[in-house]
Amino acid sequence: MRRTSSDERSFAAAARQLLGPDSLVEGAAATEIYGTDWRGVYVREPLAVARPRSTQEVATLVRLCASHGVGVVPQGGNTGLCGGAVPASDRSEVVISLARLNKVRNIDALGGTITVEAGCVLQRVQEAAAEQGRLFPLRLGAEGSCQIGGCIATNAGGMNALRYGTARQLVLGLEVVLPDGRIWNGLRSLHKDNTGYDLKQLMIGSEGTLGIITAATLRLFPIPQRRSHCLAALASIEDALALLARLQAAFDAQVMSFELMDGEGLRAAERILPQMRRVLPLSHPWYVLVEVATASVQLDLDDMLAMEMADASVDGIIADGVLATTISQARDLWFWREAIVEAERRNGPSLKHDISAALTAIPALVRELKKVVPAISQGTRPVAFGHLGDGNIHFNVWLSKDCTGSQAAKISEQVYAIVGQLHGSVSAEHGIGQHKVDLLRQVKSPIELELMARVKSAIDPSGLMNPGKVLRREAGARGRMAG
Amino acid sequence: MRRTSSDERSFAAAARQLLGPDSLVEGAAATEIYGTDWRGVYVREPLAVARPRSTQEVATLVRLCASHGVGVVPQGGNTGLCGGAVPASDRSEVVISLARLNKVRNIDALGGTITVEAGCVLQRVQEAAAEQGRLFPLRLGAEGSCQIGGCIATNAGGMNALRYGTARQLVLGLEVVLPDGRIWNGLRSLHKDNTGYDLKQLMIGSEGTLGIITAATLRLFPIPQRRSHCLAALASIEDALALLARLQAAFDAQVMSFELMDGEGLRAAERILPQMRRVLPLSHPWYVLVEVATASVQLDLDDMLAMEMADASVDGIIADGVLATTISQARDLWFWREAIVEAERRNGPSLKHDISAALTAIPALVRELKKVVPAISQGTRPVAFGHLGDGNIHFNVWLSKDCTGSQAAKISEQVYAIVGQLHGSVSAEHGIGQHKVDLLRQVKSPIELELMARVKSAIDPSGLMNPGKVLRREAGARGRMAG
Repeated sequence: MRRTSSDERSFAAAARQLLGPDSLVEGAAATEIYGTDWRGVYVREPLAVARPRSTQEVATLVRLCASHGVGVVPQGGNTGLCGGAVPASDRSEVVISLARLNKVRNIDALGGTITVEAGCVLQRVQEAAAEQGRLFPLRLGAEGSCQIGGCIATNAGGMNALRYGTARQLVLGLEVVLPDGRIWNGLRSLHKDNTGYDLKQLMIGSEGTLGIITAATLRLFPIPQRRSHCLAALASIEDALALLARLQAAFDAQVMSFELMDGEGLRAAERILPQMRRVLPLSHPWYVLVEVATASVQLDLDDMLAMEMADASVDGIIADGVLATTISQARDLWFWREAIVEAERRNGPSLKHDISAALTAIPALVRELKKVVPAISQGTRPVAFGHLGDGNIHFNVWLSKDCTGSQAAKISEQVYAIVGQLHGSVSAEHGIGQHKVDLLRQVKSPIELELMARVKSAIDPSGLMNPGKVLRREAGARGRMAG
Repeated sequence: MRRTSSDERSFAAAARQLLGPDSLVEGAAATEIYGTDWRGVYVREPLAVARPRSTQEVATLVRLCASHGVGVVPQGGNTGLCGGAVPASDRSEVVISLARLNKVRNIDALGGTITVEAGCVLQRVQEAAAEQGRLFPLRLGAEGSCQIGGCIATNAGGMNALRYGTARQLVLGLEVVLPDGRIWNGLRSLHKDNTGYDLKQLMIGSEGTLGIITAATLRLFPIPQRRSHCLAALASIEDALALLARLQAAFDAQVMSFELMDGEGLRAAERILPQMRRVLPLSHPWYVLVEVATASVQLDLDDMLAMEMADASVDGIIADGVLATTISQARDLWFWREAIVEAERRNGPSLKHDISAALTAIPALVRELKKVVPAISQGTRPVAFGHLGDGNIHFNVWLSKDCTGSQAAKISEQVYAIVGQLHGSVSAEHGIGQHKVDLLRQVKSPIELELMARVKSAIDPSGLMNPGKVLRREAGARGRMAG
């Protein structure tokens, strides 16, 4: 399968001629920076790495790839967790980095829209909106390095999805370079537009397999003027759901975040992270971090939240609770949420499962999952946390030293089996990439896989857009050079 | 083109045998009830009308249609304004009414989901949610007769889209009978699910051209505990947008409706509808109806809204305003909004344009539109109203007696030309149906039309699902009997 070097040379020469030499990355950097995913699990040598400066240059490159029959891997900040932004095979795919398409093209503060290029770092989009007194609400751990194009291509979720939805709900229009190199200008600023199939919704979350998002028009919101935070200790996830229902009845859309933390994970985190302050006793089974926010300066949110928590305490829904009364206290509460992630990283290898289910199925789901892990490998630590308000749990298993590879595989297998029994999702927000392609084939109905494959063939008949991601690479749809 | 009666007989006989005789409607009722659209513009004789009782029966019927090569027209409450739910040609298409699939299958109040069959009348869905202390927020003029399947197939909008989004944002899962008669069970209760292409988003708004929605899982919300309403008189739409920005800054997601009314339309309505109470002087150019609502009983919404309106008055943004302090006063304010529609209906023939644009483009859009109409036909009355908060204007032209057909056509032509110049949409919420198929071809880019056609061919290669709707009926894709 080793391709001839003349093929590589001819592609690189043509790309160099079209874009100039400074738009190509070659040598070791190509693999180290652009061929390696964030977790370091996937390391591939790209056929070439191109760094176009404009949508036109992206289109030119895609046409060149199409004419050479080579696969195209769109790459943003390369912070994805499923290997979706790096090649799936060696020396046969061109990585197109969107990093240089990083302009804010337009911002309409009154109309509540911003148009940005795909390579804008998420934090830059947030800042550009804030400079005009508006909020762009997508908020992720990786916001300092992930790019907005990748956020949209993977339908990113994060901390504020409960209030504002995932990326899918925040996009009004897209500009996309199609697999044949034509540019679809679907940039619109319309909140309502029922003129045929909603093609942008098809592109959102398709992980670069249907085209390359080069720019987007996004929704902006009023900036909340007041925020309140509290941390509650609870006896069960059932109680956490009861608390959520009460808070949503009282605060409605003003509930921004409702994050679950596993007592087991927090106790381990405290041992690993000395800077973690004990804002509540650590003996409880579960904790939730609540953030409420409002645009109304008239509201005494702290007071309202304190009253709700007091009522919940009287009614036995929460076992303990603390309200942040200063910004630094709020930071301490968020530190607990982040501590679980950081402690897991420092602890060593872990299995990550980004799952979701109907809210009311979550208690049974977590109960079953917690049972299955020690039965397979004693000493492993199952830790459930995440965006409970969205029904999205990160069920991560901290592996013990003597957990074998086959035991680890068995744990994941059983986790996903239980998720399936409870009609949940095996990828709530991280996507499929190359990591979960086989898993997807196991859990999706044949009808749905077939519909996806038909859509893929309709939009990308040569199969050159991000090959081997989401859907299995089909024989005969690989392009000439890889054939 | 008159088909042979033996073809008709053989189809009807097979359908009768499969479903029983009481599931077929024949004779005059077929055309009068099922072949005639709500506006009475499209009157077609269906090949047959079938009223299946279950998803399985829908699937059986669709397979039968596929094997006979006849087109399938899904029909809900038949309240659409673009002829999407009635046949596009005589005696060649089978209408499948979803009316008997009207069960609420499941409601999960705590989890915030309801699963209903397509034939449930929207109001019934609202009531079923309310019985469990939850809100299903879709709210339309036709809610007493439109069915939820049609609402989803057309991505219905309505009065509360500003707060809760259109139907698209309210759907978590779908059950769909595909063009070959297989059933895709995509009923899920997941708020986050990034496992491949979002096929439900493709189905939503596709107006029955990709399959028949037979059931849906929908999102429920807390019921607002307090509502406040006010009506403001304004000098310009610019001022209305400034008011909207202030209200959203103060109330954020608690702004439920922000409805524009044309002073010209209200003055005419007062002459036509004697029961209309003059809650404000009628001399102003523009009026907006504001509804804010909150789940928080602690909030004094009336007081907050009164303060905001007082500030807006001091700053010269509103010319006059009235706050409803009783439920009957609130009803009087909403009557103004509804009066424009009712007066138009009683006045006689009109041209309806359901358009949208970026919020900040609306003032220029309406200004240009208002100029163009009298220049073509003196005595016609252009009336702009609708969901300004969503950038969605109903620009309707009340025709004078001496306006000719070609003048009317010219008005619509110019309206859509101006919408195009301002990058707006020619169908914000009503869809395309058969009414705007030619218009869609004029306003959409060839790339976008091509992508839509590819998706259509991928999912419905025989072109039998709601033929002649949204996309132009392609030669060779009409099926055997019509050939």
